[in-house]
Amino acid sequence: MRRRNPLSATLAERTDAGLRAGAFGHATSLSCRECGHQVALGPHYACPECFGPLEVAYDYPAVTREEIEAGPSNMWRYKALLPVPSDIEDSPNTEPGFTRLLEARNLAAELGLTRLWVKDDSTNPTNSFKDRVVACALSAARELGSKVFACPSTGNLANAVAAAGARAGIKTVVFIPSNLEKPKQVNSAVYTDKLVAVEGNYDDVNKLASEIAGEEEGWAFVNVNVRPYYAEGSKTLGYEIAEQLGWRLPDQVVIPVASGAQLTKVDKAFQELISLGLVEEKPYKVYGAQATGCSPVATAFKADTDAIRPVKPDTIAKSLAIGNPADGIYVLDICRRTGGAVEDVSDEEVREGILLLARTEGIFTETAGGTTVGVLRKLVESGRLDPTLETVVINTGMGLKTLDAVADRVGPAATIDPTYAAFTATGLAD
Amino acid sequence: MRRRNPLSATLAERTDAGLRAGAFGHATSLSCRECGHQVALGPHYACPECFGPLEVAYDYPAVTREEIEAGPSNMWRYKALLPVPSDIEDSPNTEPGFTRLLEARNLAAELGLTRLWVKDDSTNPTNSFKDRVVACALSAARELGSKVFACPSTGNLANAVAAAGARAGIKTVVFIPSNLEKPKQVNSAVYTDKLVAVEGNYDDVNKLASEIAGEEEGWAFVNVNVRPYYAEGSKTLGYEIAEQLGWRLPDQVVIPVASGAQLTKVDKAFQELISLGLVEEKPYKVYGAQATGCSPVATAFKADTDAIRPVKPDTIAKSLAIGNPADGIYVLDICRRTGGAVEDVSDEEVREGILLLARTEGIFTETAGGTTVGVLRKLVESGRLDPTLETVVINTGMGLKTLDAVADRVGPAATIDPTYAAFTATGLAD
Repeated sequence: MRRRNPLSATLAERTDAGLRAGAFGHATSLSCRECGHQVALGPHYACPECFGPLEVAYDYPAVTREEIEAGPSNMWRYKALLPVPSDIEDSPNTEPGFTRLLEARNLAAELGLTRLWVKDDSTNPTNSFKDRVVACALSAARELGSKVFACPSTGNLANAVAAAGARAGIKTVVFIPSNLEKPKQVNSAVYTDKLVAVEGNYDDVNKLASEIAGEEEGWAFVNVNVRPYYAEGSKTLGYEIAEQLGWRLPDQVVIPVASGAQLTKVDKAFQELISLGLVEEKPYKVYGAQATGCSPVATAFKADTDAIRPVKPDTIAKSLAIGNPADGIYVLDICRRTGGAVEDVSDEEVREGILLLARTEGIFTETAGGTTVGVLRKLVESGRLDPTLETVVINTGMGLKTLDAVADRVGPAATIDPTYAAFTATGLAD
Repeated sequence: MRRRNPLSATLAERTDAGLRAGAFGHATSLSCRECGHQVALGPHYACPECFGPLEVAYDYPAVTREEIEAGPSNMWRYKALLPVPSDIEDSPNTEPGFTRLLEARNLAAELGLTRLWVKDDSTNPTNSFKDRVVACALSAARELGSKVFACPSTGNLANAVAAAGARAGIKTVVFIPSNLEKPKQVNSAVYTDKLVAVEGNYDDVNKLASEIAGEEEGWAFVNVNVRPYYAEGSKTLGYEIAEQLGWRLPDQVVIPVASGAQLTKVDKAFQELISLGLVEEKPYKVYGAQATGCSPVATAFKADTDAIRPVKPDTIAKSLAIGNPADGIYVLDICRRTGGAVEDVSDEEVREGILLLARTEGIFTETAGGTTVGVLRKLVESGRLDPTLETVVINTGMGLKTLDAVADRVGPAATIDPTYAAFTATGLAD
């Protein structure tokens, strides 16, 4: 695992002295998840001692349910628990979050569950949960005095960064593989005139981004040098689930696993809520969902090992296709600790999951959501998820972005002449 | 203007006696907008006396800001002012509304406005304001004991009906022209296996829908026989704008005009808020936006006449392409009464409007929103919209649904080899 901290000698030195008070809210430092070493808040992401990943640490304030409920209908209602300043609402951002938590009675009945909810992040500003993490990264970039907001991405992240950067009025550069499908290019290029197509695959794009981060001063790559702040945004999914359930935790939660960061942050959110006294402590099980074509964490879970072997992704669930997931080991820890599991489903089951969710609950998810619903079904059928316990499944994105996955599966039931007789002949009136 | 009331002899007689108490909340009757004749609540939409359009009338309850603010983060926080029962939150629906109201500082600066807001309905469950009206129609269908939920549509409405019907677990039939593009078919077919493709144009589809409504018992066509309830859903856009501004009305509001219903309902909402004492009374100007290729209302406005001449639409703004808008006359009334205007822009200006909104505020709108932003710009440039007054522009839908409108306008700034040297050669690092 090669980790570099390219900005530590440039942006960091320039800004560490210049941070305004409360720039990162109640965050106190960056703490290494491996060795516990503490680093001052700044554009750092790897431990200088052991190269482990850095995570934001806080001196948590006292915060009440009422204070949170009095906040805005977006993720900033939880700003006291995020690495953002208390005036975050005053700086232009896409105002994501506080998305629907829908009770899914039809899907529950279909799967034989007693009580099931869908946390639906497809209705975020650019239609995926990435708006949450990017909003935290944008705040960090602003507070660090970054000149450029950037990312390498093939999809949801590119959309979210390009949109947030436009709204913030910051120079925004998005790097994509040059062979990306035209519609996906358009969905980022509409926001920025600084989209850069790179001849090569996603790994090549990523490598170039790291190189630029190391050479150029003042660039905030959301998923590279401001990653610790970025990742914290996913905690809001956990906070919202608890608040929307009436300030309590679910018994079971099923979460898609790409890098694994989202799953670990939802667990972190639940733990924070317990220790802050905002919800009652109770056992809950966390389940991870992968597509079989990119299932290194599920494979390790099943083999009862901590050794996650990188894979070359081959699945239609492209937004989950990270072959060497940075947080995989923490996903294993959490799923084992809580009594959950990590499971994977085939591309065929992903497609079925998309249709199942659409037909039962009117939610059109992308392939990541199809994966999660497919895994939910598989876990129920194999008896590893208790159907009598309250369960939440997270939908992270929107089906319009991956139309091809189901385009050849659905269509008109009939094509008719424009007459009543032709319609009754279809039998659809019966 | 041909109006029929096909269900009055079937579903109406069956259900008028069978409505539960409070089935339509505080609604008392259907009232003719032309002659004032009152009709009992039921699946009626045309006045039996004069064939004028029926509208929901209320015995408005006392309602406070605090009661509304204590409600859910969706349109049901205003349920006391809608034709829905007080337990509406208990029946499965898509829970739309309470979307973002974003202050648009960059767009304001670009256009020379002092204070501008975007009400962004692209983040609704199926990414358009149609989720609001369909939610009200669904409630009406449920309360009327309808067996089938249906609509003729080519786009946003089809998506919203198919999704809401799936979630409600009611038989749902959606009629589309058979030549509709495949992606648009998929975006409805994913929710329902009862999509019917009709050989003919949209007029043929509409005619067939009316015929079915007249022949079959218990069909609720959202935009035909339950239209009065359906249309009330757009009032929530007006309520939300006022609440999100801190319980006050804007000085100016720019609204797209298809049938014209949305504009009239936003005005109705503002008037209700004033008469209920929820906002202070003040003058406001309402502006309507059309695409030049389908601008019968703008044409009548400019000619200073009430005679709206139907047109054959020819514009990329397909979701606004209603050649004979049912509420056009009321749009003229409101825009003239308030001192606003109805303006239109070319398809080229629609495309520019889409890019302008995306690049300044990170909101990717569909062609309808491009039309509204284009009209906003034109009104400012021609001096008919006061740049010093607080203005709200409504974005009704999402750009992913009309990608083609801008697909040939945007793209990578550069295509490069995956090297730092290649990147610096682009000049994008400067």
